Parts: sequence; structure tokens; C-alpha cells
Amino acid sequence: MQSKIMLSNRHAHLTAEHITALFGAPDALTASRDLGGNLFVSAESLELRGPKGSIGNVRVLFPARNYTQVEIFRADAHVLGVKAPLRESGDLRDAAELTLVGPAGSVTVPCGIIAWRHLHIDAEEAAKNGLENGEIIQIKCGNERALIFDEVLVRYAPNGTNVIHLDFEEGNAAWVNNGDYAEIIKK
Amino acid sequence: MQSKIMLSNRHAHLTAEHITALFGAPDALTASRDLGGNLFVSAESLELRGPKGSIGNVRVLFPARNYTQVEIFRADAHVLGVKAPLRESGDLRDAAELTLVGPAGSVTVPCGIIAWRHLHIDAEEAAKNGLENGEIIQIKCGNERALIFDEVLVRYAPNGTNVIHLDFEEGNAAWVNNGDYAEIIKK
Repeated sequence: MQSKIMLSNRHAHLTAEHITALFGAPDALTASRDLGGNLFVSAESLELRGPKGSIGNVRVLFPARNYTQVEIFRADAHVLGVKAPLRESGDLRDAAELTLVGPAGSVTVPCGIIAWRHLHIDAEEAAKNGLENGEIIQIKCGNERALIFDEVLVRYAPNGTNVIHLDFEEGNAAWVNNGDYAEIIKK
Repeated sequence: MQSKIMLSNRHAHLTAEHITALFGAPDALTASRDLGGNLFVSAESLELRGPKGSIGNVRVLFPARNYTQVEIFRADAHVLGVKAPLRESGDLRDAAELTLVGPAGSVTVPCGIIAWRHLHIDAEEAAKNGLENGEIIQIKCGNERALIFDEVLVRYAPNGTNVIHLDFEEGNAAWVNNGDYAEIIKK
């Protein structure tokens, strides 16, 4: 099976309380891009600060969630001077403490993770391909920097979804672009 | 066979003429680190400029070479606004034109490449493992972000060498650090 690749830049998910603290009001964020599925990239941005450095121009994916989570690159953890764990979205065990700075204020919270690469696929399409929620698969990307990603998590997603989520460091290591296709390999 | 991983940051190799143009004299560079094999990382740095952006604090590997080559990350090419090809060191076909800015002046030259990952190994050790100069192998990295790099070039190197060269984007995609070991797989 082939699936489409979506590459993630560093980004933040915020609670309504933290949107208010950083941007002044729970509805302060405006969309610069519509990602589909009622998910938007903010026009506004925040800055991340850690003990060793800072990274500006970080966008928020909204609407609000019931947890604040910042997904950074492994290189960012080095710049910020924090240890960020590799985690599935929503799993904030041992998340790195970061200070988020917005135009209206700042908050310091354990929120920094590095995203665990995964395949988002609807249950029916998964079943057709012999895949199950929680399974670990491989993804083969073929090009100048061909490689096989191991330890890729399968996660059920709404109907019609069939997307591989990688971050830009993973995408660059494989020399792939947003919208490229890669081959799913059952282990 | 296991080989040690060496991760490269972005860096420049310069001709004596360009060292003079950027830093004022052919012997202007001083070593901040000794990489062994008569190769040093400069204490001094230069800035890269492209049509879309700039990147500062780029170190020079010296002594001088007979060509000027800047090895950047794929993400850097995006920041700078250039197309940089994936190349073996010394192969500057279609290299991206960059402006290099030093304390004594600047030069604009086609010099930007993204390094083709490779195994540097001495001929005897290679022969023992059935490997030849120019061969393409795979490298298996096993950890949280386990993956198998394909399209890895074998290059003969001085006696006693057995090192995998990756850049930091590749290292981060595989969750490996400088000095980690990975498994060589003959295709």
C-alpha cells in the first residue's frame, strides 16, 4: 500500500487557558492555513525558551485542546537545552519544561515532545491492508536518500484518512516532500 | 560489521584564496577542535547568504582545499532559498550559489551541496567485510527511531578508519548521537 506523506514543522497545541495567557483571549487566534478536519494553523506565533536558547516564530495548531503540547525537532531540543522524549501525541510523560512567550504573556509548562512518526489511517482501509491500531510497521521511501523507517506506529483516524506523519528532520533525511508517497511494509 | 557514527554539522571547506578573502590572510584560521588526520574546525566563523535568508556561525574545516565547498542541511537550503544537490564531497556539479561573508570580506560562489551519506573505511577492513570502494550499502540504526539508511556510499579511507558519516538531520531522524555504532548491511 502507498500512503501520502505529511511533514510537520515544529508547532504548539494549547489549552484555552494558555491561548488566553499568551494571546489575550480564548478566541484570539486567526487561521493562516486550513489543514482540514477542523484544524487550523495560526497566523500568530509564539517563542519557545529553554535554559540554553530560544526559537521564535512557532505556530499554534488550533482550536484549543485539553492539554498544552509543543512538538519540536530533536535539533530544537539541543538549541533550547532540554531533553525532550519521543512520544505519541497526547502522551506528555517526561515532557520537557519550556517557557512559551506570546504577545500577551508567558507560561512555563512541561510540554515539549518529539513526535513519534505514525500512519494515520481509517479502520476500514487498515483492515483491508491487514493493519491494526497500535501496530508497528515500516515505511519505505525511495529516492536519492532512500531509507526504510522502522518503528512507525499505526493509529486509526477518521474515514478517508491515509497519511504518514513525519517531521521535517525525518523528511529531509529521506529527501521527501510534503505530498510524496511512500510504501507501507507490514513487519 | 559495526561502524562508528560521526554526525556533521553544516560547515565550509575553503581554498587558500577564499580564506584570504574572508578572513584576511591564508593562515588566519585558528583551531577550536582537532578532528584528527590533520583536519581542524575553525574558531572563526562565516555567514551564508542566499536569495531568501542567511545562516550565521558556520565553521570552516581547514587546512585549505583546492575547491570551496559548503555542506549544508536540506533544511538550510530551504532557509537560504537555494536548490542544493545531494553530492559526494568534491563533486560540485550544480552546486548552489551562495554568498560567504567573513570578517574581512565576502565571495559569491557555486559551492553549496548536501552531503551524500557514506562509510569511510580502510581498504583492508573493507576487503575483510566483502566491501569495495564505490559500493552502495545499507546501515541499520536500532533505537527509538530505528531505521535503515539505504543508498550509503562506501569510500576507501586511510588505515584504521571505519566511520559512518551522516549529517545532523539524518542523525536526528534515526535518534543517534556522535559515537554511536550502527550495523553495516551488504546489499
